[in-house]
Amino acid sequence: MLNRQVTLKSHVSGVPKEENFEMIETPIPEPGEGEFVIRNLYFSLEPAIRGWLDGKENYFPPIPLGGVVRGPSVGRVVKSNNPDYQPGEVVFALNHWEDYSVLDSEAILLQKLHPKGDTPLSYYIGPLGGSGTTAYVGLHDIGHVKEGQTVVVSAGAGATGSMVGQIAKQRGCTVIGIVGSDDKVKLITEELGFDHGINYKTTDKLSDAVMKLAPEGVDIYYDNVGGPTLNEMLLTMKVQSRIVCCGMIADYNDTDNPNPITNLWEVVARQLTMQGFLLHFYSEKVPAALDQLEKWIAEGKIKVMEHITHGIANTPKAYGELMSGKTTGKALVQLDLPEENG
Amino acid sequence: MLNRQVTLKSHVSGVPKEENFEMIETPIPEPGEGEFVIRNLYFSLEPAIRGWLDGKENYFPPIPLGGVVRGPSVGRVVKSNNPDYQPGEVVFALNHWEDYSVLDSEAILLQKLHPKGDTPLSYYIGPLGGSGTTAYVGLHDIGHVKEGQTVVVSAGAGATGSMVGQIAKQRGCTVIGIVGSDDKVKLITEELGFDHGINYKTTDKLSDAVMKLAPEGVDIYYDNVGGPTLNEMLLTMKVQSRIVCCGMIADYNDTDNPNPITNLWEVVARQLTMQGFLLHFYSEKVPAALDQLEKWIAEGKIKVMEHITHGIANTPKAYGELMSGKTTGKALVQLDLPEENG
Repeated sequence: MLNRQVTLKSHVSGVPKEENFEMIETPIPEPGEGEFVIRNLYFSLEPAIRGWLDGKENYFPPIPLGGVVRGPSVGRVVKSNNPDYQPGEVVFALNHWEDYSVLDSEAILLQKLHPKGDTPLSYYIGPLGGSGTTAYVGLHDIGHVKEGQTVVVSAGAGATGSMVGQIAKQRGCTVIGIVGSDDKVKLITEELGFDHGINYKTTDKLSDAVMKLAPEGVDIYYDNVGGPTLNEMLLTMKVQSRIVCCGMIADYNDTDNPNPITNLWEVVARQLTMQGFLLHFYSEKVPAALDQLEKWIAEGKIKVMEHITHGIANTPKAYGELMSGKTTGKALVQLDLPEENG
Repeated sequence: MLNRQVTLKSHVSGVPKEENFEMIETPIPEPGEGEFVIRNLYFSLEPAIRGWLDGKENYFPPIPLGGVVRGPSVGRVVKSNNPDYQPGEVVFALNHWEDYSVLDSEAILLQKLHPKGDTPLSYYIGPLGGSGTTAYVGLHDIGHVKEGQTVVVSAGAGATGSMVGQIAKQRGCTVIGIVGSDDKVKLITEELGFDHGINYKTTDKLSDAVMKLAPEGVDIYYDNVGGPTLNEMLLTMKVQSRIVCCGMIADYNDTDNPNPITNLWEVVARQLTMQGFLLHFYSEKVPAALDQLEKWIAEGKIKVMEHITHGIANTPKAYGELMSGKTTGKALVQLDLPEENG
């Protein structure tokens, strides 16, 4: 039995294509001292990975050509020389796109998962994982969300955005989602309970469209995209309102040429607070967020949106779909290695 | 006796020129019911006025062609039909560039001034007025300044910037001022006690120059200018540090073509907080700020920097000097009308 690994064949320019990647097979690794081996069950496809595919540093070193692509995964421990991680346990960590990964206790983002009752394991990657907790912490601890406010979220049908909108609805807000297709407008308003959806691709002047729906302006803009959308949203904010800066995916496919922002004067004129945050600096907030999210999901108040691709060989294609806005909800790859073989 | 008034002759494009203005003479106004007339003693020259000179709205309606230029002034009440404002009292308000102004109790920014001891009246316009209190409140309530931090301030030799740097020194910070000439570097480091000064006009890569002086990065960037300076400063900030957005003067002379900001990704990556503020929303903070500033000035710990132009006829020229970066400290016009004549 071999370990299938997805490697970077050529540096990515623009949206990742299948030809940028190549699958290789290597021996299944053995754990060294203090190490353990997991069999990966899911890959969590995330925009941040894009930053490592073009040879530049982005929090982490770039992935070298021929190197296995780095990315978060969930896997089950199959062999261990580490007393803290026993075979059968399920862990999340920043691993690689491969069937089997070797970890030690210092693995980045490493945490054990304890799925409750019938909750599918995949939920702990999206709505009960980074996407859901990022949405929750961003809205509460950065956005200071309050009942009755108007909340706008970009990439509103995405993994984080779909959670932001649903959480804001639970908090009694009016929610407007900005998305990239009419189907997504339909999805967020009819399925997820957003009050309004705007397809930015068919909207001439986004700020006008938002102001028409929210004539008094916006209290919280939860920004996942940056770029022209952020630039327009700066024109819609109430005095002393807040912009939660969670991601700037509009620039991820071409970091050398970020979209220029020309309306920053509004930060002074409207006395805005723009605040960036990364979840791992707020880990003390995560348990309470998870408790609340688990309740809402169990009660059916928050709907889980997943885009699951099957088979490790389809990972490059699935990643290209994510990075071209073709997916809704949390994008995952479910590995095709039969669990019994582990 | 007549009332000299500086009117807007033509809309301003770029840096204001003398020919954009024209002085006229009109009868001295009489106070109506509830009104009072002041004889202006000083005009406070401020970048915000620039926003009203090109026919566009900027907080306030644009000044019409032929209209008297709007601007803050300090004057002494000479005639009053308002029991709350007695002849001899000195007030600050948003008035006009003229010898005599008519006000009522609702005048914008209206406040009585009570100069203490030998403190010159002009100090209550700059270091003990809007510039000083803006610097103080911005550093404390927006910047959350703490001892030992590294503070960078742009327009460091200006009315607000020169106060920001000196206040930060009193709070035990390392202070770097960004200015537009070698003379200003000399001024802020040798006269005002800043630790370092950078002449951005002769610096290739501002972020490199700042990082050389502050290898661990910047805790607070107090931004008075926006534009390319802000764009570079985004590359120097510590994780979870703060940018106090006080003004974006780099764009005031050409608001139709604001400088593009391309490094906003750093707001996410470094988890920055960028916060804009306008002093009049923080009026409850002003008395304590003034108390502290008066003490520091009386003790000689903070030096007062003024650029006083004499004579109402020189107001347009003085304003052009301010808006082309030729002044240091608070720019004022002292009116030439002998006080005895009032």
